[in-house]
Amino acid sequence: MKFKNRNVIISPKAKIGQNVRIGDDTVIYDNVEIGDNSIIANNCIIGEPNSDYYYTDDYENESTVIGSGSLIRSHCILYSGSIFGKKFITGHRVTIREKTKIGDYCRVGTLSDIQGDCTIGNYVWLHSNVHIGQKSQIENFVMIYPYVVLTNDPTPPSNKLVGVHIKSFAQIAVFSVLLPGVEIGEHSLIGAQSTVDKSVAPFSLTLGSPAKHIKDVREIMSRENGQPHYPWPMRFDRGMPWEGIGFKKWKDEK
Amino acid sequence: MKFKNRNVIISPKAKIGQNVRIGDDTVIYDNVEIGDNSIIANNCIIGEPNSDYYYTDDYENESTVIGSGSLIRSHCILYSGSIFGKKFITGHRVTIREKTKIGDYCRVGTLSDIQGDCTIGNYVWLHSNVHIGQKSQIENFVMIYPYVVLTNDPTPPSNKLVGVHIKSFAQIAVFSVLLPGVEIGEHSLIGAQSTVDKSVAPFSLTLGSPAKHIKDVREIMSRENGQPHYPWPMRFDRGMPWEGIGFKKWKDEK
Amino acid sequence: MKFKNRNVIISPKAKIGQNVRIGDDTVIYDNVEIGDNSIIANNCIIGEPNSDYYYTDDYENESTVIGSGSLIRSHCILYSGSIFGKKFITGHRVTIREKTKIGDYCRVGTLSDIQGDCTIGNYVWLHSNVHIGQKSQIENFVMIYPYVVLTNDPTPPSNKLVGVHIKSFAQIAVFSVLLPGVEIGEHSLIGAQSTVDKSVAPFSLTLGSPAKHIKDVREIMSRENGQPHYPWPMRFDRGMPWEGIGFKKWKDEK
Repeated sequence: MKFKNRNVIISPKAKIGQNVRIGDDTVIYDNVEIGDNSIIANNCIIGEPNSDYYYTDDYENESTVIGSGSLIRSHCILYSGSIFGKKFITGHRVTIREKTKIGDYCRVGTLSDIQGDCTIGNYVWLHSNVHIGQKSQIENFVMIYPYVVLTNDPTPPSNKLVGVHIKSFAQIAVFSVLLPGVEIGEHSLIGAQSTVDKSVAPFSLTLGSPAKHIKDVREIMSRENGQPHYPWPMRFDRGMPWEGIGFKKWKDEK
Repeated sequence: MKFKNRNVIISPKAKIGQNVRIGDDTVIYDNVEIGDNSIIANNCIIGEPNSDYYYTDDYENESTVIGSGSLIRSHCILYSGSIFGKKFITGHRVTIREKTKIGDYCRVGTLSDIQGDCTIGNYVWLHSNVHIGQKSQIENFVMIYPYVVLTNDPTPPSNKLVGVHIKSFAQIAVFSVLLPGVEIGEHSLIGAQSTVDKSVAPFSLTLGSPAKHIKDVREIMSRENGQPHYPWPMRFDRGMPWEGIGFKKWKDEK
Repeated sequence: MKFKNRNVIISPKAKIGQNVRIGDDTVIYDNVEIGDNSIIANNCIIGEPNSDYYYTDDYENESTVIGSGSLIRSHCILYSGSIFGKKFITGHRVTIREKTKIGDYCRVGTLSDIQGDCTIGNYVWLHSNVHIGQKSQIENFVMIYPYVVLTNDPTPPSNKLVGVHIKSFAQIAVFSVLLPGVEIGEHSLIGAQSTVDKSVAPFSLTLGSPAKHIKDVREIMSRENGQPHYPWPMRFDRGMPWEGIGFKKWKDEK
């Protein structure tokens, strides 16, 4: 029943790749480029113009690129001026503002809100309802769980935004807030409900408000088997480039 | 102005009951069954296929059932493979994934996100923006307030999900997170902003991060009248089966 | 590509001002009045009827007013019976229920959820994903950041709602919850992740769960220049009526 081209509007200035399927009621604005074999489900807005569109006569939409093999679920709004890598997968009702750069194999969950002007690496998974402030920088293989906020204004309100920097393999649990300018070290784990006001060392389990170092993540045991669970890439490979190979071998071969 | 059948798409394989009204721009997929006298407002997707739909040729949509007398407000997405009891009422923009079973007389507020594979009893009220993780089990007469998260992964990321179990008459206040596997006792009240990492006894007011038992809920006085307010069914009956009868009498008669 | 009047439905009982532009798939219900030079983007519902509409034959929609020069972004739902002042600007997917009164020059961010029956002054900025409970009262020049909840039920569930009162120039940082009936003093700043259970004095930096007075906001220095940053109107003027004039001069001239 999908992809019957009911009420689909595609700008003549958009470039649609081979074997792309577009759902009903979706709008594709000027200068959008969609990679081969991608699916854009129903009711999406791709290349949403910024507000100058409403108020100037000679508005030219910035280019928007969606990589090949992507799946954008229904009711998403992706602004113009953003670039998404290949195999990009979203939930429903995601909003991503302009000047966002997202790498390959990333996932962004239902209701997440990326405020624009930020950089996200490869294999980053944002769960449902994550809020990424402007100027955020997220490296690779980072996982962020629901209702996490990355802030940017040290003395609100001001015009000086200082983004958060999350390094590779870090994880941020539900309801945590990262205050402006903090750096989260590689492989660290921020516990639920934490307020992180200082930078966090690599491999640190950090927790609380204000958040404190609790222990090395390598001391945390899995409930599944009583063995150490971290660094997590040694125990978890679903959807990762080391799936079926093992992290160590994959890393050695790189 | 509603229910003029503009752009409504209903699968020939859906079963629509007597006196059902369906709003503009709503899509009803294969194998959906809608009970008599229900209202599905505008822009809803009922029986949303799971992602196999996009990638396999012989996809068969699982059955989806909505009980009689339900009201699904606009912009909701209910996945196929879920079952909703009678008099089910939602706010706007609710997302409910597959394999969710919800009983009778339940309410789910605007923007709530039920991740699927969970079981919810009767007369459960989820307020706006509640996030229910997979494998959650919620009994009857439970109330969950905005921005509450039920988690499920004890050592993220892992493939072993352990759901939360909330027993009847419990209430969870705003911004609380229930960690994987905890059980919330009957009639207990979890205070705002709590991180519940251990199971909670019945009739307990529990609060904080990590959450601690504060006192018996029966010691809490109402601001309305200075009398004990809990167990709440003794003081509150709007929309409940003991409305106008009293909880005690209703219980005795059952 | 916008404003081509595709699938736009406007009640003959609505009053549309001069030079108003309305996006595709938007519905304007009975007794809505839209001020001159406003923009209502795609997929909005303006004047959404309350639930009596579904169940009564002689339903008459309450009047809804949107001031001149407003910009309502896509996918917003504004209920009937609410009044919005001039230059009202929203993000996407905002939900505002009935009996809400919002003044001039206000902004409400993406995914925010205003539950109705509340009063908001002028120049109030609600960021993304703010939840305003019924009976809330917000004065002028207030800023509320993402994932803040204003509650109203002191002994849930009950029928006695007691709203929060936020005085002018106050700011509430991310993930804070204001418990029923608290008053937030002028120019105060509530820190991230706070649970505010008591009223807060003017000019107070208040923080924690339960929230405590930390210091006078006038002792907080800006990271930009090492100077005192508060009261913020002395340092920030973007979009404010004292822009280019200075707060002091503007105040003196009033």
